Amino acid sequence: MHTFVTGAAGFVGSSLVDRLLQAGHSVVGFDDFSTGRPEFLAAAYRDTNFRLERGSVLDGSHMQRAMQGCDFVFHLAANADVRFGLDHPRRDLDQNVIATWNVLEAMRASHVGRLAFTSTGSIYGESRVIPTPEDAPFPIQNSLYGASKLAAEGLISAYCEGFGMRAHIFRLVSIMGERYTHGHVLDFYRQLLQHPGHLYVLGDGKQKKSYLYVQDCIEAILLSLEAAPERVNIFNLGLDEYSEVNHSIRWICEHLGLHPEIRYGGGDRGWVGDSPFIYLNCARMRNLGWTPRLGIRESVIRTVQFLQQNHWVLNAREATPVSAGSA
Amino acid sequence: MHTFVTGAAGFVGSSLVDRLLQAGHSVVGFDDFSTGRPEFLAAAYRDTNFRLERGSVLDGSHMQRAMQGCDFVFHLAANADVRFGLDHPRRDLDQNVIATWNVLEAMRASHVGRLAFTSTGSIYGESRVIPTPEDAPFPIQNSLYGASKLAAEGLISAYCEGFGMRAHIFRLVSIMGERYTHGHVLDFYRQLLQHPGHLYVLGDGKQKKSYLYVQDCIEAILLSLEAAPERVNIFNLGLDEYSEVNHSIRWICEHLGLHPEIRYGGGDRGWVGDSPFIYLNCARMRNLGWTPRLGIRESVIRTVQFLQQNHWVLNAREATPVSAGSA
Repeated sequence: MHTFVTGAAGFVGSSLVDRLLQAGHSVVGFDDFSTGRPEFLAAAYRDTNFRLERGSVLDGSHMQRAMQGCDFVFHLAANADVRFGLDHPRRDLDQNVIATWNVLEAMRASHVGRLAFTSTGSIYGESRVIPTPEDAPFPIQNSLYGASKLAAEGLISAYCEGFGMRAHIFRLVSIMGERYTHGHVLDFYRQLLQHPGHLYVLGDGKQKKSYLYVQDCIEAILLSLEAAPERVNIFNLGLDEYSEVNHSIRWICEHLGLHPEIRYGGGDRGWVGDSPFIYLNCARMRNLGWTPRLGIRESVIRTVQFLQQNHWVLNAREATPVSAGSA
Repeated sequence: MHTFVTGAAGFVGSSLVDRLLQAGHSVVGFDDFSTGRPEFLAAAYRDTNFRLERGSVLDGSHMQRAMQGCDFVFHLAANADVRFGLDHPRRDLDQNVIATWNVLEAMRASHVGRLAFTSTGSIYGESRVIPTPEDAPFPIQNSLYGASKLAAEGLISAYCEGFGMRAHIFRLVSIMGERYTHGHVLDFYRQLLQHPGHLYVLGDGKQKKSYLYVQDCIEAILLSLEAAPERVNIFNLGLDEYSEVNHSIRWICEHLGLHPEIRYGGGDRGWVGDSPFIYLNCARMRNLGWTPRLGIRESVIRTVQFLQQNHWVLNAREATPVSAGSA
C-alpha cells in the first residue's frame, strides 16, 4: 500500500509507521509536531519508503497535495487531551472534528478510497452496558473529547455512504507501551521521580479502566484491514480485563521499589467528564482471530520501563497538561 | 422566560416564536434570512415582546451580544437540506456543527444555562430497531445531515456535563403544516401545478416515513421543558404511524382532484443517504402526557392547503433545491 499517516510522529502513529514500513508499504508521514516527537521517527527516516511532510491537519490543501499518489489514509492526528477539554473547548472541535473533515475532503479530492481512524471508548460516555459492545445503546456524551470523536466517526461514515469510501474505525481504550508520552502512568512516574515518598491521585483511585499494549493495538488495526469487508467497519480495541487506578499505582510502585504515601483528590472520577468505568467488549475483533499478547499489568510495567529509559520524554513535556483520560 | 430563538424566521422557528409570545415570554429572534422568511414573523413584529436580530449563527460574537439578558435558547437554525448534502459537504459542518458550537460558546459567555435543540430522526441511520427508541443500538451515519446533527447533539451533551447547562434535544421526523417551505409535498405540489397530468417521484414511492404536524411538535417541545428534569433530555418526536410516499401522493392528488401519470426514479430510496424507513418510537414523550392532535393524512392535507393559499412560497423558492428528506 501507499499509505498516508496523520499524527505520524505521535505515540501510536510512529509505532504504526514503523510497522507499515517493516511490512514493505510506503509511508507519507504527516505531522505538525505540536505533540509528536521527531525522535520517534528515527527508524522511519532511515527507510527510503518513508517521507515526512510537516504540516497541520487544519491545512486541508497542504494535506491534499501531500496525499497525492497514496491509496490508504491512517488518520491518527488528534487532540487526545481529555481532561483539559473544558479549558479550551475549541481545540476538540478544530483538531478532532474539522481536521477529520479536512482529511475526508483531501481524500475525496485525491481519489483515496480507504481510511482507518482511531476513535475512543470515551464515546460510550457512562455506558449502561459493561463490557460495552460496538452496538451499545445510543450513548450520551460526557466529554468534549468523546463528542468530537463521535462527530468525526459520523462524518467518516457519511462520506463512506455518500462517496463510496471504505473505513475502519477503532474505538480504543487507553494505549500503553513504548513511546507513551501522556497519561496517568507518566503523571505518577514523574511525581515519584520528584518526590518518591508522596503520590497525589485524582479521584478516589477506584476508577476502572481498560488498557491495551500499543503493539497489540497495531496488530488489530492491520489485521482488520484485511479481514473486515464492510463499507464501515467499527471495532472496539481493548483487553478482556480492566483494572483500578489503584492497581496501576501498586504495580508502578512495586516496579520502582517505592512505598509512597498516597493522597486522593476524592470523588468517584478524576475530573468532570471522566467516565469512572471504561471496559469494552472486544469480541468482534477477537472473532477475526486477534489475540493481544500483553495483559494490563505487563503493559503498565513496559510503559514505566520506557519512561525510565527515556527521561527526555518527561522533561520535554513539563509544560504540557497531563491527561489520564485517553491514556 | 426571556428566550433567544435561532432560525426564528424558519418554518418551525417562526411557529415556535408565535407560541412563545402567546404564552407571554419575550423573544429575541435571530435569523440571517438565508432560508427564513420575513413574512412568517408578521405576527411577531406586532408584539412588543419580540425583537428581531438579523445575523448569522456563524458569527458567534454577534450571537453573544444579541443573547444578553436571555435565559433560554432555542437553537433551530440549521441546514435542513438532506438530499443535496453531498453537493456541498462543508455546509452541514458549518451550519449544523460549528454553528451549534457557536451557540454553546455564546451561551457560556452570556451565562445562559438552558437550551432546546431540534435534531433529527436521521441520526438513527438505517436502524435495525423500528420503531426506533432514543436508546436504540449505536447507529452508523448514512448522511452528512444526520452526522452533523449527531455531532451537534454530542457537543451539547458535553457542554451540559462540563459547564452545568441543561438541554432538551428533540429528534424530529419530517414536520408538516402551515409555513412548510421545503420537502416532498412542496415538490409534488409544484410539479402538479406546472403539469397536472404528470408526477415524477424519486425512488420507488415505497419509502416509509413518519410525519408530525408543526403545532403538535411545538406542543411537545414546550411540555417537555416543564416535565423533563434531567441534565440532558432526549426525545423522539413523531407519530405512532408511518406512511409510504405513495400514500402522500394519493392524498395530495385526491385533495387536488388530479389523476396524474406517475413516473418513478427507481430504487428503494430517493437518493444516496436516504433512509428508506424512518419511524420513531415516541413513547418517552407520550409518557409525559403529550398527545398529537393530527394524523399523517391530515398533516399532509394541511400542508397542501397552506401551499394553495401561499403560492409565494413556491415562487420565491424556485431556485432552491427541494428536499424530501427532513420534510
